[in-house]
Amino acid sequence: MATDFTRTRAMFHLPDGVIYLDGNSLGPLPMAAAERVQSCIEGEWGEMLITAWNRAGWMNKPRALGDRIGRLIGAEPGSVVLGDTLSIKVYQALASALDLRPDRKVILSDTGNFPSDLYMAEGLTRTLGEGYALCTVAPEAVEDAITPDIAVLMLTEVDYRTGRKHDMKRLIEKAHAAGALVVWDLAHSAGAIEVDLAGADADFAVGCTYKYLNSGPGGPAFIYVAPRLAENVQPALSGWLGHDAPFAFDLDYRPGAGIERMRVGTPPVLQLAALEASLDIWDRVAMADIRARSIELSEAFIKGVEAACPALTLASPRDPLQRGSQVSFAHAQGYAIMQALIARGVIGDFRAPDILRFGFTPLYTTMEDVSGAVAILKEIMDNALWDRPEYKTRARVT
Amino acid sequence: MATDFTRTRAMFHLPDGVIYLDGNSLGPLPMAAAERVQSCIEGEWGEMLITAWNRAGWMNKPRALGDRIGRLIGAEPGSVVLGDTLSIKVYQALASALDLRPDRKVILSDTGNFPSDLYMAEGLTRTLGEGYALCTVAPEAVEDAITPDIAVLMLTEVDYRTGRKHDMKRLIEKAHAAGALVVWDLAHSAGAIEVDLAGADADFAVGCTYKYLNSGPGGPAFIYVAPRLAENVQPALSGWLGHDAPFAFDLDYRPGAGIERMRVGTPPVLQLAALEASLDIWDRVAMADIRARSIELSEAFIKGVEAACPALTLASPRDPLQRGSQVSFAHAQGYAIMQALIARGVIGDFRAPDILRFGFTPLYTTMEDVSGAVAILKEIMDNALWDRPEYKTRARVT
Repeated sequence: MATDFTRTRAMFHLPDGVIYLDGNSLGPLPMAAAERVQSCIEGEWGEMLITAWNRAGWMNKPRALGDRIGRLIGAEPGSVVLGDTLSIKVYQALASALDLRPDRKVILSDTGNFPSDLYMAEGLTRTLGEGYALCTVAPEAVEDAITPDIAVLMLTEVDYRTGRKHDMKRLIEKAHAAGALVVWDLAHSAGAIEVDLAGADADFAVGCTYKYLNSGPGGPAFIYVAPRLAENVQPALSGWLGHDAPFAFDLDYRPGAGIERMRVGTPPVLQLAALEASLDIWDRVAMADIRARSIELSEAFIKGVEAACPALTLASPRDPLQRGSQVSFAHAQGYAIMQALIARGVIGDFRAPDILRFGFTPLYTTMEDVSGAVAILKEIMDNALWDRPEYKTRARVT
Repeated sequence: MATDFTRTRAMFHLPDGVIYLDGNSLGPLPMAAAERVQSCIEGEWGEMLITAWNRAGWMNKPRALGDRIGRLIGAEPGSVVLGDTLSIKVYQALASALDLRPDRKVILSDTGNFPSDLYMAEGLTRTLGEGYALCTVAPEAVEDAITPDIAVLMLTEVDYRTGRKHDMKRLIEKAHAAGALVVWDLAHSAGAIEVDLAGADADFAVGCTYKYLNSGPGGPAFIYVAPRLAENVQPALSGWLGHDAPFAFDLDYRPGAGIERMRVGTPPVLQLAALEASLDIWDRVAMADIRARSIELSEAFIKGVEAACPALTLASPRDPLQRGSQVSFAHAQGYAIMQALIARGVIGDFRAPDILRFGFTPLYTTMEDVSGAVAILKEIMDNALWDRPEYKTRARVT
């Protein structure tokens, strides 16, 4: 299948005058989402009321949409379910993995991981108590740190600041050889790069839908459990919708079949409706095409910026195969430069201490966006347009 | 303030021909919700993209809406925050309470509690390990079971099946005297009855917004932590938005100020927009008026059903002060009777094994609804209209 990117771009609403290079933080609005959510609100909630849980299929959406995301990350059918936030899903995956390695107590991660993943691991090890620990090393030191005392290796495949990509398959092999399980955070992978969970023999994976998957602000997270493990998982967050028979209202928890047990509470139906509109677009897409186009866009951006703005230093790996779908540049005045860009309609984001981050999202980013962004960045740098007090005052940045 | 219930009813969409007595499961659609969500999708997500986190105030909604719910449950300003599902909030509250009583290991609850609360407690005690236990007694035996080895008393104030209401103030006094903390689940209390968390010296409370608070399917839950405790809580689910400085991206977790630390991941912005539309209605309401009107409606229903349908047995306390805002009747053919009611436009729900449950929600339930429902129920019972195969086949009931 050859993905038609002109067609996919036409399926998104992009505001006039904006070059949006921040789809790695919040994807833009699929044109069909407003109507889909409206119809869920008025036609389903409004008219069917409580009966919509069955009649409109609300109860099954977390699994049904999970399978559609599963295709994009190489997951087996029936191995992905939606719900909660990414942080909660990290906790679930970690707790389950630790539980499967009762003779070990160490979670290994890296300092390039998204902080919330580390925080959730901290909270979990504190709850588990005596002897449980989170150990972090530099990203490049992970491979050598996988020793036989590690219970779980927890990594974000693509670094949220630099875009540096871990070698999933190799690290899983190494971890399995040492008897450890691996939890992958795919926040910057799902919809961004080719992921082959089944092919890489992955154990657990989690991710969010509001970045590359364009489900809208606060869209639900997803979790993957390898089918070979799912029946052995004893959920720590044992909520009623993960129960084998939620509506029997038994007093004791009994986990549901396979991935069902990773459900917890009532699914966010309005957010799922928005996600559905986005998945209608994703269903037309081959991830190999996305990856090829993403590299083309990113390489053009790096080449353009390095030629036009010598004061900016590439903070991402130069080899595109070592990167995800974003490009970062460092500059001491990074914050002010990003504000100047945003004021001129080029939206990327800033990550402390000095990173300008630009996401390349082939569904709607064009070569003209790339050259336009480079031209505006050059103008800002050539004329020090960032050097204004209002660009230096830090509001809360997301 | 005298609440104008004619006016509040006009602010909801209720389908033609439906008598809706299931607002205790899923509240109906506030007329303004569709437009409010639409404007969030098109005007905020669509036009402001990532910048809406600050410009549209998305990041602050969990606290701002928390305060508006706080008024309805007698919480101090700044003591309630929204997010996640009720099950997750139960886990957070329980873990925090246990952590504040490190010398004790028992959670006491009752067999009338909503199963998911018990399941979450089971998962937590399993994670905490050695010695931690959940102990359940019959609802009427709770008071006597509060002994000095109890760390946390976890109760749902209003029983989801029978509507039986615990005496919050007395049980808190008893628990505090024994050195225990209390976690209240307000799922069937918030928006249903008068709750005075501050006045009752409550410790922790959690609840959901999609029942009486009408936020729509999968709307976020809320959590309350008494201000006197909040600064001592060390969150088990330590997510980045509960961090003191989420956007500093520190590698170590440091809890945010007070209730902020109970936030975990990215808030569900679309669901919050729907909740806002509902809270615009709630802002006009005095809970004392709601309670008085709820009792009036419930008493009329009981009187009507008992006169018209002698085969049904009241399963709720007869004294209205011992009930929440729902009335339940038991019948061996309860499931089929409820299906027959729903087929005739009277929507209540069934709870295993034999409970017909009817919610009375003064914002939009009228005396005509009550008499209409009684008349249809009488017709069904008088003519055994429930005795049809299609009413006896159990689909998944929510």
